Amino acid sequence: MGSTIETILEGRNGKQAVMAPGRRLVVIGERLNPTNRKKLAAQLQAGDMTMARADARRQVEQGADVIDVNVGFAGSDEPVVMAAVVEAVMKEVEVPLCIDSANLQATEAGLKTFAEHGGKKALVNSTTGEDERMGKFLPLAAEYSAAIIGLAHDERGIDFEVDHRLEAAAKILDRAGKYGIPRSDVVIDALTLAVGANTNAGRVTLDTQLRVTTELQANTTSGASNVSFGLPDRKLINLAYLPLLISRGLTSAITNPLEDSIYNVILASDLLMGHDADARRWIEAFRKRRAAEDGSG
Amino acid sequence: MGSTIETILEGRNGKQAVMAPGRRLVVIGERLNPTNRKKLAAQLQAGDMTMARADARRQVEQGADVIDVNVGFAGSDEPVVMAAVVEAVMKEVEVPLCIDSANLQATEAGLKTFAEHGGKKALVNSTTGEDERMGKFLPLAAEYSAAIIGLAHDERGIDFEVDHRLEAAAKILDRAGKYGIPRSDVVIDALTLAVGANTNAGRVTLDTQLRVTTELQANTTSGASNVSFGLPDRKLINLAYLPLLISRGLTSAITNPLEDSIYNVILASDLLMGHDADARRWIEAFRKRRAAEDGSG
Repeated sequence: MGSTIETILEGRNGKQAVMAPGRRLVVIGERLNPTNRKKLAAQLQAGDMTMARADARRQVEQGADVIDVNVGFAGSDEPVVMAAVVEAVMKEVEVPLCIDSANLQATEAGLKTFAEHGGKKALVNSTTGEDERMGKFLPLAAEYSAAIIGLAHDERGIDFEVDHRLEAAAKILDRAGKYGIPRSDVVIDALTLAVGANTNAGRVTLDTQLRVTTELQANTTSGASNVSFGLPDRKLINLAYLPLLISRGLTSAITNPLEDSIYNVILASDLLMGHDADARRWIEAFRKRRAAEDGSG
Repeated sequence: MGSTIETILEGRNGKQAVMAPGRRLVVIGERLNPTNRKKLAAQLQAGDMTMARADARRQVEQGADVIDVNVGFAGSDEPVVMAAVVEAVMKEVEVPLCIDSANLQATEAGLKTFAEHGGKKALVNSTTGEDERMGKFLPLAAEYSAAIIGLAHDERGIDFEVDHRLEAAAKILDRAGKYGIPRSDVVIDALTLAVGANTNAGRVTLDTQLRVTTELQANTTSGASNVSFGLPDRKLINLAYLPLLISRGLTSAITNPLEDSIYNVILASDLLMGHDADARRWIEAFRKRRAAEDGSG
């Protein structure tokens, strides 16, 4: 299912994360984000990078292939904070970063700092298919040879029409090309909305996911946890959602690898999709869990 | 994805289980099986139906839509035991039954008893695409107007060629038609083997599943738990496998609804596939779990 297009992100010292059909899911660790984390926001405000560095390191230890850096909080001087956090994180880990901001200057500051500290190819999070946003973020990604996430909606807004989402995704891929960004450097997000608000929300995203994989042959990502918003036992819903997407070709996910149940379901899905030769990663992870239990027991 | 072909099983008093793309997964409860259950085997041997009835009732209470009846154990007079168990289960629950035996006489005894006690359409488990087996089980299913599970392999044995599995499935659908069994009464099992023994085992089944759904447009089932055989943390692997299959069109599964984690991932998958309007079943199940916790706490 799908082509073998490869999105190769690269941090420092040659550390890569490769998205492609036929490879295991790339995990983009989302934990470094001050939303609903007052202590982290206060530290970032004060220029204290202790938690930011620990978040990055722990996520990589737990299996993150890419670290998403989001420093948006009320009162944040986002470009300044982004540069400081990217620098701190680059000293802590070697993996590529995902520069996550709606602020163009903050995104540029993040990309610049990433490059200055030896980073080779970052991921920009994100553009939509809206002309204005593409006109800002695509040239920036091109300038820094970064890959970019494309959210599958345009000026019509977010609706539940698979065709609209596919058109928006195709538009982003096309427009990126005009700025010299190869297809392989655009990662489409089929958009996840709360299934509690609309019964069809999950199905529409899953159907879009399949068509992006088979018709547009692009790599894909998903900020999957929104799907359960407003419903009880959210974690159980999120657990099922990732394999549903992976089965339809998802090649990366923005998620928290520190949540064991989520990370285990990703490992199990990789195994079942044939992306874990001789179950080596599965067995290694099992031994780690066992050792951790023994250590705490 | 797929057509809207419906497999309508029916127990007594009009109690139906309907498999179709676009509907929630039909759960075939597999618990009533003496394999590795010495006490159940001893009861069945002695003609004591206490556990058999309890297994059936509890599974239906937990969400099973169909009860699989398997009475194969060493020393079993299978046709006699099958008839007795089917009769006992029919008195306990109204749902349709899945008559699960490799023994033709036992299968016939089960179908006959099912009909005598008001059952309308049972499911026979199973034929393969082997001529000899089809020649025995298809006429029997036709005689009793039963639906039948078709395991996707033939004389060539079980291998890891998707094409072979698809050919075997197509052959069963075709041959069934010659006996007057409509396509809608054949339920294909893409065959699940242990991923620990062959890295490609999961992928081959998933690819077969997708092609059975889209190319053959048949309803499907899976005895999914084999996939994790021989590996540690089997339950985590099984949890991921069901959504992977469901995302590719699986319309029923042979599983144990008494295992909460398995049943919850099925409910969550139904919700995310758009088969649980307004999340009604999800919320109802949450309330049941909550009440059970309160009761035990």
